[in-house]
Amino acid sequence: MSKNEEVKNGVIFPVGEKNTAYAQYFVGQSYLKSLVADPEVNVGVGNVTFETGCRNNWHIHRNGYQILLVTGGEGWYQEDGKPAQHLEPGDVIVTHDGVKHWHGAAKDSWFEHVAITAGTPEWLEPVSDELYDNLQQ
Amino acid sequence: MSKNEEVKNGVIFPVGEKNTAYAQYFVGQSYLKSLVADPEVNVGVGNVTFETGCRNNWHIHRNGYQILLVTGGEGWYQEDGKPAQHLEPGDVIVTHDGVKHWHGAAKDSWFEHVAITAGTPEWLEPVSDELYDNLQQ
Repeated sequence: MSKNEEVKNGVIFPVGEKNTAYAQYFVGQSYLKSLVADPEVNVGVGNVTFETGCRNNWHIHRNGYQILLVTGGEGWYQEDGKPAQHLEPGDVIVTHDGVKHWHGAAKDSWFEHVAITAGTPEWLEPVSDELYDNLQQ
Repeated sequence: MSKNEEVKNGVIFPVGEKNTAYAQYFVGQSYLKSLVADPEVNVGVGNVTFETGCRNNWHIHRNGYQILLVTGGEGWYQEDGKPAQHLEPGDVIVTHDGVKHWHGAAKDSWFEHVAITAGTPEWLEPVSDELYDNLQQ
């Protein structure tokens, strides 16, 4: 069963194309639509859509930060050493400089967030199946 | 007639309270919900909701910028010396440092956007009724 399938069509903002540029840093299929990529602005804004079970690798934003505005479906956010937080539309996450974390869809739901990102990501290891498969709301 | 009245209940993000702090810089009633106000992050994020006919004064973002992510209803964005742009959900606006502009609802519609703001606003004169009342989609 896959919940929130309508998210695959985009919630307010378009889903864009298959996220091939970052596919190596994801488990599963994600989609990316760039909303703002402007050399005069210190953040990039993108709409990221995750199919069920899709999540990005553990990563760190260096010399910057990331803000997630959840627009659709159900997902997870976790900082290293802390419990995972279940996410739903309207939730807002701020990840500070240097904090190791990951985010992605729930195993049975599509998921979508707008990401506002400053700095440079440092990509690390995938989220293990053991961790992900044992997440419980 | 007032279109898109459901926007007054918030589209994904809550409408928050009456925007009393900035009321002096608006014509009509707006509502503001702060989503991110974090000293470690160089942008603030807020959800701004405009009743029909409500718009902010002409203003300039100094030493920063503003990004608008339109989430609900219908509105307008105008930079000084340029034609007004009609806005609807999914539209994205970037205002560069130093650019005089205003934004707000259409005269017959509620309107909502997320605003991502860096720097300090300089507030100027109200948008005249002559300009606003003659906007045509």
